[in-house]
Amino acid sequence: MDAMDIGSAAPAAETAGDAGLPSGAMREMVEALGRRARAAAPFVGKASTRAKNDALLAGAEALQDRSGVLLEANEADVADAREAGISASLLDRLRLSESRIEGMAGGLRQLIDLEDPVGAVVAAFERPNGLRIEQVRVPLGVVGIVYESRPNVTSDAAGLCLKSGNVALLRGSSAALRSNRAIAGVLHDAYESSGIVRDALVLLDHPSREAGVEMMRLDDCVDCLIPRGGPSLIRTIRDNATVPYILDGDGNCHVYVDADADLGMAETIAVNGKTQRPSVCNATESLVVHADVAAEFLPAAMRAMPEVCFVGDGKAQALASAAGLTGMGSATEADFATEFLDYKLSVRVVGSLDEAIEHVNRYGTGHSEVIVTSSEQSAERFCAEVDAACVLVNASSRFVDGEEMGYGAEIGISTQKLHVRGPMGLVHLTAVKNVIRGNGHIRS
Amino acid sequence: MDAMDIGSAAPAAETAGDAGLPSGAMREMVEALGRRARAAAPFVGKASTRAKNDALLAGAEALQDRSGVLLEANEADVADAREAGISASLLDRLRLSESRIEGMAGGLRQLIDLEDPVGAVVAAFERPNGLRIEQVRVPLGVVGIVYESRPNVTSDAAGLCLKSGNVALLRGSSAALRSNRAIAGVLHDAYESSGIVRDALVLLDHPSREAGVEMMRLDDCVDCLIPRGGPSLIRTIRDNATVPYILDGDGNCHVYVDADADLGMAETIAVNGKTQRPSVCNATESLVVHADVAAEFLPAAMRAMPEVCFVGDGKAQALASAAGLTGMGSATEADFATEFLDYKLSVRVVGSLDEAIEHVNRYGTGHSEVIVTSSEQSAERFCAEVDAACVLVNASSRFVDGEEMGYGAEIGISTQKLHVRGPMGLVHLTAVKNVIRGNGHIRS
Repeated sequence: MDAMDIGSAAPAAETAGDAGLPSGAMREMVEALGRRARAAAPFVGKASTRAKNDALLAGAEALQDRSGVLLEANEADVADAREAGISASLLDRLRLSESRIEGMAGGLRQLIDLEDPVGAVVAAFERPNGLRIEQVRVPLGVVGIVYESRPNVTSDAAGLCLKSGNVALLRGSSAALRSNRAIAGVLHDAYESSGIVRDALVLLDHPSREAGVEMMRLDDCVDCLIPRGGPSLIRTIRDNATVPYILDGDGNCHVYVDADADLGMAETIAVNGKTQRPSVCNATESLVVHADVAAEFLPAAMRAMPEVCFVGDGKAQALASAAGLTGMGSATEADFATEFLDYKLSVRVVGSLDEAIEHVNRYGTGHSEVIVTSSEQSAERFCAEVDAACVLVNASSRFVDGEEMGYGAEIGISTQKLHVRGPMGLVHLTAVKNVIRGNGHIRS
Repeated sequence: MDAMDIGSAAPAAETAGDAGLPSGAMREMVEALGRRARAAAPFVGKASTRAKNDALLAGAEALQDRSGVLLEANEADVADAREAGISASLLDRLRLSESRIEGMAGGLRQLIDLEDPVGAVVAAFERPNGLRIEQVRVPLGVVGIVYESRPNVTSDAAGLCLKSGNVALLRGSSAALRSNRAIAGVLHDAYESSGIVRDALVLLDHPSREAGVEMMRLDDCVDCLIPRGGPSLIRTIRDNATVPYILDGDGNCHVYVDADADLGMAETIAVNGKTQRPSVCNATESLVVHADVAAEFLPAAMRAMPEVCFVGDGKAQALASAAGLTGMGSATEADFATEFLDYKLSVRVVGSLDEAIEHVNRYGTGHSEVIVTSSEQSAERFCAEVDAACVLVNASSRFVDGEEMGYGAEIGISTQKLHVRGPMGLVHLTAVKNVIRGNGHIRS
């Protein structure tokens, strides 16, 4: 998804920065931050909705009022990153501007109107023996988030955690260290002015990879870790984390064009999925087309997306050639397994719905899968048999998004099955506690 | 909780057993079993409720009909275990009998009447743009369960997984290998006769610790791992697992006797929590008593449980002595942190509700915590501020149980916060899939 320095081998520059800090001291520093987060959790957990909203508003205002401080810190980060030869796209992600700061402030303001999930009663029932059981939403406690160079995630994640009553333990990338410190400083002051403990946001601002890995092992301090980064970060988490985590994995999303599809609709959905914003995880990466409609659909789709590089299987290539389109390359096994995040699309022609489902389940990453069809039966089977967080019928994969699905904001998109599948909103940053009331009940 | 050979260093006997199987071959064997489980998952996932119930009934009948085969296999296990010098309590857990087999059959039969969670619609709503979103319960897929010497878990876990549409990938202890194979064989035949694929139950029946660890790393094949064992197993999982898991941890459960408690009720609840079945995770392990009532409550509680060994802090000891009771030992830090699972109880006297909550949060394991009080305010605060899966007011900790809470059967009790807290029933063996329907919707 995004480049993440924690997932790859530690860059030389970072290792050098650690020279003065032996591993034991570094561990102690990370543990101390973890304990601060843990200690703050009860206070954040019982903060009133009003206090949390006040802090969000104060934070939004302070980000804008103090944008000069943020831009100055960010300029230093950008200058260093440019000197270190960072890529143009990473540099762009790292850069703050007045309008991006406005966006961060807007993100916090938007949270104010969202319902506070804490305290909601999920279920309440009475047992035959008179015991009354209530299942109540409570904050998770300390939510750790590991992310990459975009400094705006610092305020987005802090805001989502605060509104859901959690302490945010944040670990951004080393390239954004000064920017993140500046943002955290502004938010700390805003929190304090609204009666929220400063440690509702704890920034793990040590740049080393080791510190990041240490954070994944704070069993006693972190209730849930959410990585936002690419495959190498996820591998690092899988291999090292001992705290519970929710994987926000790749989106190798397919659009299957069924024999019964409205081909005009299929084309619109494919074009939107691929080209509306190719760099995000809910973009469409692959077309699976029923052989009955492939000769008509594929050339039309290719003509509708001239900016997209198509790679297909033999049948797809033959159909493209037959239609006088010479631009389709040969899709390798790796192409079918790749989330391109670019103007590139793989194509597979299948003989049946079964074959389509098999292909999608084989190469998909459990994110979002689309069928375009007018057959209710095909839709039902696709929805039931495709194993993914989200299955869509006659709609673009781009709708898999917290905002679009009505959560208002998202902390990520889960591609695992436990706790939550798909977009994670405020409600998914809570746990359900069992409150059981009796009047002297004992078991016999 | 229970002794588990996978969690400790590999016993010599097991290592020797591996001599002929190099680690690469062993990994391949475990991976092959994982792939079989994965391949079976779609078929189990779409099995009808009727087919699953038929298989449960057939399994129950077959266990009883073929009890001779099971007892014979079990006798061989028991003989070997006795020769290996296994403890009497482990030997007891390992042993099958006609009545235990009846219990296993009863466990399967009980599942027939429980509601099938698969397909239940958790939420359905329409977005302003007309997109219709349904959140539907689907099986997790492959549920891995690692457990200890009780062979009855083999049928219990298999049944829970089957009813919830999941493949059960089971790894019991090496001591119960022949018993588990015999049980799995009986169930396989019963499944087949009811139209359920045999691989709905895959037994990882290689005795080595390495095979167990390998199972924890089957990222592509295991959707959720549930360990049922003691702290060393949990440590092994934390350190090695790369698949998602739900921890079924210790229950260091407290009863807090508030200043406003009905002391007769408090005594009954403490006695029931401690002595009704001391070896289970929801047994009470510690009393926290408000100083205002300690002089009256503690001596009475000690007299009510003469079979229990009390260890207390200085104040508790002084009160016991003053009442002429000489049996209270001094509680160490370790005592307060220990799940005794025995006729032993630690005692702490506190000056306030705050101190009680602090003590419980410090030494508790997030399982089940009880307050006995007639103050609604104290109850509210305890329930809100104690961080545990279950908080109970005026009821014994022993009620924290799937059956008692109305789930009908449980696969374990979660002490972590993600996915589920407390008893896990059929519904917790499912995930929620997002099904999104449009009519050509694209994002602008």
